[in-house]
Amino acid sequence: MYRPEIKVLDCTIRDGGLMNDHQFSPELVRKVYKAANEAGCDYVELGYKADESQFDRSKFGAMKFCTEGDLIPMVEGIEKKSKLSVMVDIGRVDPEAIPPKSESVVDMMRVASYVKDIDKAINLVNQIHAKGYETTINIMAVSHARERELDEALMQIEKESAVDVVYLVDSFGALYSEQIAHLSKKYKTLMPTKEIGIHAHNNQQLAFANTIEAIINNVNYLDATLFGIGRAAGNCPMELLLGFLKNPKFDLRPVLELLGDDFVKIREEIEWGYTIPYAITGILDLHPRAGMALLKTDDRDNYLSFYEKLINEANV
Amino acid sequence: MYRPEIKVLDCTIRDGGLMNDHQFSPELVRKVYKAANEAGCDYVELGYKADESQFDRSKFGAMKFCTEGDLIPMVEGIEKKSKLSVMVDIGRVDPEAIPPKSESVVDMMRVASYVKDIDKAINLVNQIHAKGYETTINIMAVSHARERELDEALMQIEKESAVDVVYLVDSFGALYSEQIAHLSKKYKTLMPTKEIGIHAHNNQQLAFANTIEAIINNVNYLDATLFGIGRAAGNCPMELLLGFLKNPKFDLRPVLELLGDDFVKIREEIEWGYTIPYAITGILDLHPRAGMALLKTDDRDNYLSFYEKLINEANV
Repeated sequence: MYRPEIKVLDCTIRDGGLMNDHQFSPELVRKVYKAANEAGCDYVELGYKADESQFDRSKFGAMKFCTEGDLIPMVEGIEKKSKLSVMVDIGRVDPEAIPPKSESVVDMMRVASYVKDIDKAINLVNQIHAKGYETTINIMAVSHARERELDEALMQIEKESAVDVVYLVDSFGALYSEQIAHLSKKYKTLMPTKEIGIHAHNNQQLAFANTIEAIINNVNYLDATLFGIGRAAGNCPMELLLGFLKNPKFDLRPVLELLGDDFVKIREEIEWGYTIPYAITGILDLHPRAGMALLKTDDRDNYLSFYEKLINEANV
Repeated sequence: MYRPEIKVLDCTIRDGGLMNDHQFSPELVRKVYKAANEAGCDYVELGYKADESQFDRSKFGAMKFCTEGDLIPMVEGIEKKSKLSVMVDIGRVDPEAIPPKSESVVDMMRVASYVKDIDKAINLVNQIHAKGYETTINIMAVSHARERELDEALMQIEKESAVDVVYLVDSFGALYSEQIAHLSKKYKTLMPTKEIGIHAHNNQQLAFANTIEAIINNVNYLDATLFGIGRAAGNCPMELLLGFLKNPKFDLRPVLELLGDDFVKIREEIEWGYTIPYAITGILDLHPRAGMALLKTDDRDNYLSFYEKLINEANV
């Protein structure tokens, strides 16, 4: 038995792009978009809408910017079943540059925000909503949020924002199932008119399991990526999520085909997924940046000294 | 807060040995034994007690046989804090060849059994118990057991066997958290005088999550291996389990040191862990042997045809 309210969002290209400055080839972006459409994903997220006055086009791929001119070549000619999503970071997007929905191929915009920036997030999301888009607020690094401040932020979103969906984002891959259940219930209780989403990271091999735990606790918007590609330890693997969900509209085949055709090679070029340094930052509830830095050094396999360094820093 | 009844069993060498015919060097076996002792593991399992009239010593390493003469060189001179465990397969061990506990370095013997062989398992475990050992029955492939036959087997174990611990073994990595919770409760209800254990496989990246789910449902004996090494997709990673458990006797450091010193190299020599073929057999609740066979062919990345072949076979 399945829950028809469940929506799957493929963010392979968006979150995977964090590992290569969004330099995927247009051919690959189109293949992922097509496969996600055919697999029955409800949304496909291709990148960020970053301000061109802040970021240099010579240093990033087109999916860092996601203007209409960037997006149309990625999707045209492909039968559209999934809605198209882009992410916006507070302070890195120019709201004036966002066209009205009627002039855009984009259906949904997701605002990434820390708890401390929730006023800015609500302001931005309300502007985007007024232009006609579906919207989400993705509250990042929720494992570091103080409980009382998080509660206040959620109540404020419920009261002041027009947002459709609020995401629980375990940016550090630090949360265990009991904490996911607790937070899912809190989100639902404090925001009864909003849908809730989950975006999990895989530092402790819990991204898929925590997504299931969130589903059990009435979270309906589920992020996943092919082979779990994403920053550092990556995300919930789409192939596992579609294998679990019983909704007959989902089809694992287009995902498996693309994994075999392209992602075996991509894995040789880009390093993501479970490794001991990311497991350590997850266990310690820390940003993965220390692990990402370690993996670029000759000392990359010295796990014990890495662990002791992080423990000592935390104890200062 | 921790539960003092929790026992961790390291089966790195035993389950990892399934991937290389138990040909780990004596130096590595000793290193793993030492690290598991220092990390606070309650048990360390080094191999199988296989019948030498059935298996050829020229084809397998010493840890396939685990006689006293095989085991003593692996453990002598290392301070013993953990108990020593070996596994026995029904029909592959000669019970007469098992010495009394007073003449052995082994503390615990674990009998692996399918539900259909439960009479044989009880008979064997009672013989081993009479020799003075701690014992377990590990009910393999529980995802394939018919509910009524499993219930009868568990009630029979409770009534007729002297076994200390009964393990829930998700051999195919097919079970989701709700099923783990259901089975854990069933085991505990039908066998109130026995301890319950969990041995999870990682086909769907759920081995660690399902081990946590089992802990929540009063399972106290937990199997894990370094870096999750084990047959096919492998097992619950010890580094994650020790990072989760709050019992102050556990120390992650010896595990991290050995992972960096040796397991980076071992991963280049032995292929285990999450891959798409094993994810597919897990999703379909099938033995991983088809995946293991595929990975030895040139067609190893043709996931779609592998999936369709298995689906078609299942539908015949």
